[in-house]
Amino acid sequence: MEVRRIIGIDPGLAHTGFGIIDALGNKIKLVSYGVIETPSDEEHGTRLLAIYNRLQAVLMEFKPQQSAMEELFFAKNVSSALGVAEAKGVVTMCLAQNVIPLCQYKPAQIKYSVTGTRSADKSTVQQYVKILLNLEVEPKPDHAADALAAAITHVFSTAGMDYEI
Amino acid sequence: MEVRRIIGIDPGLAHTGFGIIDALGNKIKLVSYGVIETPSDEEHGTRLLAIYNRLQAVLMEFKPQQSAMEELFFAKNVSSALGVAEAKGVVTMCLAQNVIPLCQYKPAQIKYSVTGTRSADKSTVQQYVKILLNLEVEPKPDHAADALAAAITHVFSTAGMDYEI
Repeated sequence: MEVRRIIGIDPGLAHTGFGIIDALGNKIKLVSYGVIETPSDEEHGTRLLAIYNRLQAVLMEFKPQQSAMEELFFAKNVSSALGVAEAKGVVTMCLAQNVIPLCQYKPAQIKYSVTGTRSADKSTVQQYVKILLNLEVEPKPDHAADALAAAITHVFSTAGMDYEI
Repeated sequence: MEVRRIIGIDPGLAHTGFGIIDALGNKIKLVSYGVIETPSDEEHGTRLLAIYNRLQAVLMEFKPQQSAMEELFFAKNVSSALGVAEAKGVVTMCLAQNVIPLCQYKPAQIKYSVTGTRSADKSTVQQYVKILLNLEVEPKPDHAADALAAAITHVFSTAGMDYEI
């Protein structure tokens, strides 16, 4: 069995979270996490370019072999959903350019994989991310924790095992 | 007064139309137009990457100095709107990467600039694109004509003149 390196990404125009883990079967270890922030007073295209450039740098540095994202669903805030979709397009293109396969997971599936319940709230997911990765503190900001949750879901889904406490 | 080269783009996951014109004041001349098609049986990321790569090639070949797009509005078909938004994100990022300023125009504004009425239908817009650019036939497919219409709108808006028959 070989170690797989997985990047989870939570795309957004203002904040794109990323989290990288190494997995051996369903054993996981944190490699890195962070957030790509783009200031709202910058031009739209400049912000999307910053996401692309900084994600490229992260992929170059950590060389993940697989990637995971939450499936996009339509929020009530249509204009923010559009920004998220545009950022997601850039992220998806960048992953394809680096020949990193992408799997997408439904929000309920991520909650279930990480916490064991489909209706867990955000803070419960973050707590479980901390426990599962043996971290001393919960990963901040939320976008990084959500990205790590997607990466963890990918490991558990593709290792063919459920998480057991 | 210098000739400006403008690219209009009509982004979409399956079809991204583009149209390039040269403008001297409000005098315009067709340079090229076409459509970037991506097959629906290909992976999502591969399709977005194809849009990026082929748009890059178009920008390298024709070197437009300015760009124009129609503002995205939400169609009834939410899933196709998401694909359009993702493609638009990739296109917008690619333009920023090539340092080509982008202006966006509302659908009614494009119709008005090109036809003189805000409620013109698609085929009227295409007819006027043909007339304004002195073409022998209407540009096909629709996506290319819509891209040219955005480019024409940009010329008339920024040359500070309305089109007069």
